[in-house]
Amino acid sequence: MTKKPLILVTNDDGINAPGIRTLISVMNTIGNVVVVAPDSPQSGMGHAITLDSTLYVEQVFIDDGPQIEYSCSGTPADCVKLAIREKLTRKPDICVSGINHGSNSSINVIYSGTMSAAIEAGIEGIPAVGFSLLDYAWSANFEATKSFIKTITENVLKEGLANGIVLNVNIPNLTEKEIKGIKVCRQAKANWVEEFDKRKTPQGRDYYWLTGKFVNLDAGEDTDEWALENGYVSVVPVQFDLTAHHYIQTLNTWNLK
Amino acid sequence: MTKKPLILVTNDDGINAPGIRTLISVMNTIGNVVVVAPDSPQSGMGHAITLDSTLYVEQVFIDDGPQIEYSCSGTPADCVKLAIREKLTRKPDICVSGINHGSNSSINVIYSGTMSAAIEAGIEGIPAVGFSLLDYAWSANFEATKSFIKTITENVLKEGLANGIVLNVNIPNLTEKEIKGIKVCRQAKANWVEEFDKRKTPQGRDYYWLTGKFVNLDAGEDTDEWALENGYVSVVPVQFDLTAHHYIQTLNTWNLK
Repeated sequence: MTKKPLILVTNDDGINAPGIRTLISVMNTIGNVVVVAPDSPQSGMGHAITLDSTLYVEQVFIDDGPQIEYSCSGTPADCVKLAIREKLTRKPDICVSGINHGSNSSINVIYSGTMSAAIEAGIEGIPAVGFSLLDYAWSANFEATKSFIKTITENVLKEGLANGIVLNVNIPNLTEKEIKGIKVCRQAKANWVEEFDKRKTPQGRDYYWLTGKFVNLDAGEDTDEWALENGYVSVVPVQFDLTAHHYIQTLNTWNLK
Repeated sequence: MTKKPLILVTNDDGINAPGIRTLISVMNTIGNVVVVAPDSPQSGMGHAITLDSTLYVEQVFIDDGPQIEYSCSGTPADCVKLAIREKLTRKPDICVSGINHGSNSSINVIYSGTMSAAIEAGIEGIPAVGFSLLDYAWSANFEATKSFIKTITENVLKEGLANGIVLNVNIPNLTEKEIKGIKVCRQAKANWVEEFDKRKTPQGRDYYWLTGKFVNLDAGEDTDEWALENGYVSVVPVQFDLTAHHYIQTLNTWNLK
């Protein structure tokens, strides 16, 4: 018997999303796959966890692949916690999250349910990667992502990841031929300029829809935004120790008695 | 006319929580206060934003203080976005979030709605601080927090904060006399060991409650956990560039073709 890696798969678009179905198919070529994913879309959930409500998790059969799958009523972070404590018999060798329908590059990592699942696994000491394709459509074409996802996953399984580090991988919406390769990057300085679309209910009450325009403020050629705009898959090492260590010195000059 | 600072106040426990009422009362002694806070508790929401649902925001009158207040149906991050784009006539001089009922020290920063509001303000270039008291009770006594919050807020207004940095302040559940002072710290390495409390519905379906034990894995005496255990207010500078810059070099040795 060969020793195949145990792979935990999750996402934030829900267990039926084409993105996670593609990710499962790639992972089935690498190891033994267990899926614990939300039963409905959770985008924009950030690193939410369910503290004040009950969680359901139930085995489901969606396609005829060899993977074992559970659908969960919680957030992506809940899914990872439940998988580790209740559904897996041993610590997985890797956790992969995605493939997200839409970018999680630069500042989007902060809002990303896909990355929150990877970070949750990272906190548990499991090597973890979040994958995203730069196409928000449900009908996005994930074909070109497969070989890059396989390469990156196999590298993580071989090399491991240092404690406290997970990977944020974004893939441009191009054909495999058009994609120039994989670039290790830093997170670009960027933000969203929100415009709230103000409307009135039929009863005359004001309400808003959140909309906005993404603005890249960073001219650097070592960023994820640059890589994606220039046809590369971006790989950013992400840490969840949020301490700005370099700033401690400055704060210690303040008058905090 | 003296030029008083414009202060945006928000939280994640909801606009009626005793913690934010205390924070508003302290801020009224420092500047002109505008409150935009969730209409109901949002704890554990991480950095969630509302993409797929409408947002309501309405002026409310809760006490007879001079502040202007709006109650919002969204998350803490939504509140900050709405405040900046729709309710404030100019960029605030500072955004304060809290006082959270319960700790947001060490790894809890990741799950914290209180800190997500501060980070959202930070992304907008506004100096921002999240305040938390180490008492989860609704009836927590916030009296001892007041002078420390005032000191820290006045320091931020005077000194400013570098781009990309917000402060995570945790206050031990002690009397003012018992608190030894303020310590600038790094985030401790800690995690939650979850235990899911598995139950059955009256109809026989399994469900879970998320419970857990907080475990500090970090023996350092420069951490927020150490400071809090030893009677100090902890101040951690937090960054939202999550790039693990030191790890880029390692990844560039991988075989990513």
